[in-house]
This record gives sequence, structure tokens and C-alpha cells, in this order.
Amino acid sequence: MRRKAVVLVSGGLDSAVTLFWAIKKGFDCHCLIFHYGQRHDREISSARRIAEAAGAKQELVRLNLPWKGSSLTDMGMDLPNGRSIEEIASGPVPSSYVPARNTIFLGIASSFAETIAADVIFIGAHSEDSSGYPDCRKEYLDVFNKVIKKGTKRGVEGKLRLQFPLIDKSKSEIVKLGASLGVPFHMTWSCYSGLERPCGSCDSCILRAKGFREAGIEDSLLNRETCLT
Amino acid sequence: MRRKAVVLVSGGLDSAVTLFWAIKKGFDCHCLIFHYGQRHDREISSARRIAEAAGAKQELVRLNLPWKGSSLTDMGMDLPNGRSIEEIASGPVPSSYVPARNTIFLGIASSFAETIAADVIFIGAHSEDSSGYPDCRKEYLDVFNKVIKKGTKRGVEGKLRLQFPLIDKSKSEIVKLGASLGVPFHMTWSCYSGLERPCGSCDSCILRAKGFREAGIEDSLLNRETCLT
Repeated sequence: MRRKAVVLVSGGLDSAVTLFWAIKKGFDCHCLIFHYGQRHDREISSARRIAEAAGAKQELVRLNLPWKGSSLTDMGMDLPNGRSIEEIASGPVPSSYVPARNTIFLGIASSFAETIAADVIFIGAHSEDSSGYPDCRKEYLDVFNKVIKKGTKRGVEGKLRLQFPLIDKSKSEIVKLGASLGVPFHMTWSCYSGLERPCGSCDSCILRAKGFREAGIEDSLLNRETCLT
Repeated sequence: MRRKAVVLVSGGLDSAVTLFWAIKKGFDCHCLIFHYGQRHDREISSARRIAEAAGAKQELVRLNLPWKGSSLTDMGMDLPNGRSIEEIASGPVPSSYVPARNTIFLGIASSFAETIAADVIFIGAHSEDSSGYPDCRKEYLDVFNKVIKKGTKRGVEGKLRLQFPLIDKSKSEIVKLGASLGVPFHMTWSCYSGLERPCGSCDSCILRAKGFREAGIEDSLLNRETCLT
């Protein structure tokens, strides 16, 4: 019987590559998709399509917290816009940081993993793309792994752990890996803006464009013939 | 200006004592109450009353996860019943364990704490009452504190931490502390069964009774004149 894995799938590039990577490694993947009031909720339909294209199971969780605290969930706040790669890499925690998002997601993923008896939880976080998000850093993910080990039944039994295979990769390396795995890039969605087409100027669009440019690969999402279908 | 704290308030004895303790320490307390499909949802109205009696603010979060995996949330499963103190203390993780519950609650509490700029998150967990729940142990809570320190904005800035003031106390010590703080015991609710009166035979009722008995204090919840009003 194949080992089960819970994969956090946002609809973005990194989690799609992580999913295809986990499938190639032989895991029976259960995608966990979150609707948490994000302005770019178009990513949810992308996540669903990606899970389907990968032949993986999927589970949608709706979170309706009574507070916001982020420009990604509060339409009254401005998203960071038009920043350079250097500003994104070296700036303070941006307004698009969603407080404790990955801790909430990973907590719920731990619950799901216990329930289906999964061996691994996969998250596609990586340092270069973190935009200063503390909950995307390796030192955070290492500590969360200890939370699983100490605070869940399967973790205590040594049967569940967190893996983050992209953590040390650059965006261009992730694009290349995704291309080699046949990830349907045109199905992925990175833009924060909530518009019908990628805005090209939010942090997420800028980092994505850099990744494809440096990888020397065309971003099929931006190809009018294949995208947004 | 008083320092803000988020307090996890379940409606049970331990979190009520924790709340009154935090208020005595001078914190401006914001109670976080969860409706997560627990069969004993009567505890939610208890939590609301306790927060009100303490003069604290309150916030209710509804979690509707698409899986259960616990006899506390799945009415088709049997709760542990009629176990002795020894069986509760030394047995395996019981069916009433809700997978990763405290990790989910503490993740959401971290998000709330970031949003309201709180300095502390309080949880009333303690080892004796853990009934073998891994997410009530000190070693788990210590690691979760590191998650806050590494994975949240306020944590990285050294402005947010987790505190668990009851962790080393026995249930009888908690009852005595609560009595000294004026905790309205008759408003609290511990029973898992979901009935209108405490069943007296679930793990939670048994541990509560032991605590009051050893403290030599009457449990006002069981006094027909004051309880269940």
C-alpha cells in the first residue's frame, strides 16, 4: 500500500511542484486546500484543477476567522506593489503577511494527517520566496516538525513528519524542477491582486516572473492561448 | 495601558482559573472560544458566561473541519467511560483525543494575538489532566512557544509568547487556586457527554470530582440550587 501524504496546495507554483514531486516519490497524496478569505480566491479553483490534473484526492477547508490583519484578506488595505526584487528580499514583513497562516494551516494539516493515517505533510515553502514571511523559513518549519513530534499521536509514535522539499531552492530551480515533472504551469495562480489576469506588479507576480526568466522557460500562464481557461 | 492577552477559554475549570489568574496579573484579556463540533457544546455557553463574569472581551471562532477522528466530535464513537484514575493516568491516548486540537487552537490564537497586538497567549493545560493527550504536555507547549518565536511577526520581534501557568499543578491545586481567585465554578462545564447534567463517569467528570474532593471544596456545579441556570 502506498504511503499517504497530506500536501498543502494553494494553487500557486511552489505547492504544485511539491505535489508533483511527492507523487513522483510514490505517495498517495491528499491535497488540502484553504479558503480563508484571500482576495485572490481564484487560486482555489486553480488548486482544485491542479489536484485533479495530478490525480490526487482533495479536501477543501473553509476558515472564517473574525479578524483580518493582512492586505491579502482585507480589501481596505493596500497590497505591496511595484517593489523591486531587492526591496522584496530585504524589506520588513510586508502587509501581505497573514498572521500565523502557516501555523494554522499546518495545525489543520496535522489533524487531517492523523485522521487519514498519513506519514508525511508536505509544504512548498522556500526561503527565497518568503518575502520576509517568518512562517516560510527553515528554522520555523524545523520547529513545527517538533510540534508534530511532541503534540500529535502519530508524531509521538514516530509515524508523522513535516517535509519541505523546496526550502533551499531558488524560484528558477523550482520552475526547472516543475518543468521536469510536467507541472501544468498554466493551471497555477500566483497573483495576489484578485484580478482576472495576473497584475504583474505585486510581489508574487514579480518573484514568479524572475523565476521563469532565470530558468529560461516560458510561463504558460501568460500565454493567452492556454491561460485562464 | 494594560498589556493584552489572548486566553483560550473552553468553558471548563482549568481555562476559567487561567483567565481569572491572568486578570489578577493585570492583563487586558481577550477570550478565544471555539466551536469545533464538540458533542459537549454546552461548554460554549459556559465559556461565554465565564468571560462575561470576568469582565473580559470574547471572540468566538467556528471551525467546521470536514473530518472528525475523535469520540468528542463523532457521535458514532463511544467516549471512554467509567475508567479509574489509574486507567486515565496510565492508559494509551484515549478516543476523546481530538487530533492536533491545541495546535489548531494555538495557531488561531497566534493569529488573533498578532492582530490585536497581544503580548501573551494563555492556555490552561496541565499534565495531570492531560488524560494522555500529547498536546497538553509541557514539552509540547515549550516547542509551540518556539513556533510563535520563529513563525509570527510579534514572536520574531520578541513581543509575543505562550504561557501555561497551570502546567505543573494538580487538579486539586487548580481548584484551590480558583477558589482563592473567586472563579464561579458553577458556571464552568467539564463533562464530555453532551447531556444536560454532568454524567459523572467520563474521564473529565472523574478528574474534576477528584480535584474538588482532594481540595476539600464543594463543586458548586453539582449543587442543584446554583448549577445549570
